[in-house]
Amino acid sequence: MVSKREDADRDLSRAVPLSENGLYTLDSDLVRRVAKALERGDFSSVRDSLTPLHKADIADLIERFPQANRHKLIIAAGEVFTGDVLANIEDDVRDDLLEDLDTSKVVDAITTLEVDDAVSVLEDLGLPRQREVLDAIPQEERAAVEESLTFPENSAGRLMQRDVLALPANWTVGKTIDHMRDGVSLPDDFYEVIVVNATQEPIGSVRLDKLLRARRPETLSDLMRTDIKTIPVLTDQEEVGYVFEQYDLVSAPVVGTDGSLIGVVTVDDVVDVIQDEAEEDLLRLSGVAETDIYRATLETMWGRFTWLLVNLGTAILASIVIYQFDGSLEKMVALAVLMPIVASMGGNAGTQTMTVAVRAIATRDLNMGNLGRVLGKELLVALANGGIFAILAGGAAALWYKDYPLGLVIGGAMIINMITAGLFGLVIPVILWRLRIDPATAAGVLLTTVTDVVGFLAFLGLGALFLL
Amino acid sequence: MVSKREDADRDLSRAVPLSENGLYTLDSDLVRRVAKALERGDFSSVRDSLTPLHKADIADLIERFPQANRHKLIIAAGEVFTGDVLANIEDDVRDDLLEDLDTSKVVDAITTLEVDDAVSVLEDLGLPRQREVLDAIPQEERAAVEESLTFPENSAGRLMQRDVLALPANWTVGKTIDHMRDGVSLPDDFYEVIVVNATQEPIGSVRLDKLLRARRPETLSDLMRTDIKTIPVLTDQEEVGYVFEQYDLVSAPVVGTDGSLIGVVTVDDVVDVIQDEAEEDLLRLSGVAETDIYRATLETMWGRFTWLLVNLGTAILASIVIYQFDGSLEKMVALAVLMPIVASMGGNAGTQTMTVAVRAIATRDLNMGNLGRVLGKELLVALANGGIFAILAGGAAALWYKDYPLGLVIGGAMIINMITAGLFGLVIPVILWRLRIDPATAAGVLLTTVTDVVGFLAFLGLGALFLL
Repeated sequence: MVSKREDADRDLSRAVPLSENGLYTLDSDLVRRVAKALERGDFSSVRDSLTPLHKADIADLIERFPQANRHKLIIAAGEVFTGDVLANIEDDVRDDLLEDLDTSKVVDAITTLEVDDAVSVLEDLGLPRQREVLDAIPQEERAAVEESLTFPENSAGRLMQRDVLALPANWTVGKTIDHMRDGVSLPDDFYEVIVVNATQEPIGSVRLDKLLRARRPETLSDLMRTDIKTIPVLTDQEEVGYVFEQYDLVSAPVVGTDGSLIGVVTVDDVVDVIQDEAEEDLLRLSGVAETDIYRATLETMWGRFTWLLVNLGTAILASIVIYQFDGSLEKMVALAVLMPIVASMGGNAGTQTMTVAVRAIATRDLNMGNLGRVLGKELLVALANGGIFAILAGGAAALWYKDYPLGLVIGGAMIINMITAGLFGLVIPVILWRLRIDPATAAGVLLTTVTDVVGFLAFLGLGALFLL
Repeated sequence: MVSKREDADRDLSRAVPLSENGLYTLDSDLVRRVAKALERGDFSSVRDSLTPLHKADIADLIERFPQANRHKLIIAAGEVFTGDVLANIEDDVRDDLLEDLDTSKVVDAITTLEVDDAVSVLEDLGLPRQREVLDAIPQEERAAVEESLTFPENSAGRLMQRDVLALPANWTVGKTIDHMRDGVSLPDDFYEVIVVNATQEPIGSVRLDKLLRARRPETLSDLMRTDIKTIPVLTDQEEVGYVFEQYDLVSAPVVGTDGSLIGVVTVDDVVDVIQDEAEEDLLRLSGVAETDIYRATLETMWGRFTWLLVNLGTAILASIVIYQFDGSLEKMVALAVLMPIVASMGGNAGTQTMTVAVRAIATRDLNMGNLGRVLGKELLVALANGGIFAILAGGAAALWYKDYPLGLVIGGAMIINMITAGLFGLVIPVILWRLRIDPATAAGVLLTTVTDVVGFLAFLGLGALFLL
């Protein structure tokens, strides 16, 4: 079964690959043309090249330019550089740009944005700069942005848009449509009408397609679904992403602490959250703080330095373990030759378990209810694979050195280390999660410390006991 | 700046954590209650507990049961076990269930589903079983499902729904609304009307909110946006996910090879794709084929075995390198004590670069246009961090063993290995990608082979040259 599915995957990746020239990818020729026009100072030609592009593609094009030229490119782009373009630029690149750009240019861009996008642009700015930009924004928009900024970072409050179409349940379809045609301040994009009670609490929602299919005299209470998932404003965005994915939502009402409607989160924002959260897990497991491809070299270096420093400490710890056995190593150099095998196998087996555990916690497939069962299974898997690799590695070592006790020692150490790896690969992320630390953070370094120390200790210890 | 942002993250994770009892999580008490009712054979109480739940939560509850009890639970659930529940169960669990369930029960469930969901349920079944189920499906639905199955796995053709509201540009808003009220076979959920020309090619789209805000005499051509992103039916789902995220789409028309409209992909399906693709990268980098938390122990074991076997091969390769220096090791046991440090630092530094590269390829931030620049930066980062860690590790070793040449040797080997790691961490995923192999597959094992071999070779080689 497994092989069947893998075959299918392989076939497909041959048939329709993710190619450099994928659908709607930014054309490399275009990038070169813009770069040349910019170089010779031909701003109007830059503008002509950018005008037909989608805002997200203009943002990508700005990202592709070397940092030193981005500011000039934006000046050249003039009117084409809108708030939407700014909102689509990656955080790292945008933060640098915002420090350089004139306040008036930033303000012009931000005032065209919905509150949620304006907040996402402003939230990463240094406080003095943020204050400066906020003070220059027109009064009424500033109030909404400032209120959103009072909600914690990564909360539903930062993610939501404030314009909502909220109507009482006794309105008819006809009245609703007429109201919408009057064009009072409606949200830019929306997919559902939220139905509220007298105290403005959401009690249901009506998708626009249901509204369009219904006859004019029907009321919203006839049409609404009542199994809506309201989101408290302080909910973490990861949680919001989970709810949207679990229930296939396109939008969800956000409520304040009193239960009344204060905004709506829409799926386009949640798609970004889901990407970001999955990416975060991947990067943290590998000891990188953020995608740093657009970051300056020095910042990239420091961002990775911390993890490497911790790793140096754990590697030295492993060396101290080995040092305890330097007498044994001197007597039997085969131990030195073979010792990385046990540590490396433990590290890999542990990483497998840990990665599955980190994902399963994020998708809520692992929880305190099934922890015991999952642990039992992981230990069984570790025992089985440990047994097989004990035979393979032990057999290879015994043949290589024509020394059967040496084979038994490496085999025994392998089983010990792979069971340790399975145990800690599951337990470390679970403990971090229960301590309310992101399970991906630091899990990798803790795990390899354990598997290195146990790996060397078991192998050299057993060797000292039985071989010398 | 970095520290500011990290502080903010930490604050928030304390304020609104992803807790066991998150929003709308399946209640562990409920799971226990259902398990007890099932045990004593009280099927009607099982049904009463399940009835108020959302289909996605019923699916989660089935997943949480031990494999042996799932079949019985579904029998107990009776009518509550619908096609939507089946479609929401994870692939691994579902495939096992489908093998066990009566064909009539599977057919009943599948016929209530939209074509895209029916296909996602059927596509992983073994061919004989798939045929058996298909043959039992009523004629008209079978044709649509069979046609979808002719498209490659993971293509837009499998992802799309076939019911589309496609109208000519000269229709008025009034005519369109009247047509929808007549309730001809409309898709279950939709967000846009697709506007087509005489040959059924999509030329624009009108979001439903625009339709509702417009006056009845306006025509679709007045309202439609023409910068639509059409998706060729053979496009890989990863590409589809990219297009939706890049352009904030909620739905997109799918066209056949002749350019005519044949279906629509909606954002709810794409959210799952984005999750799956990000997850796939994470798992492949760690050498796990799929989230195997619900997989049987034996399958899990075999799924992870292959990667471990490859790792055993590379670990033995590293041992062979060490073996070349067994004379040196015998003379100077300090080399054996310190050698894991250099290899481990290279492995970690390389993994950092590789993870960033894999994500950047997936998000198209890394491409042949900026490869040279990114490589230059990675080498600079490697040189800088290599230099710092050469001083730290070399200094520590020199002090530990009171042997300054030993410190120089470990420092030199550190710089060599970290630059190698930066180079291969970037180059390996890029080469895999250009060869049209998923860059996450096998990248990890190739990289650690390189960093282990180069790490041991550089350290022991320099040691043999300069210390003995």
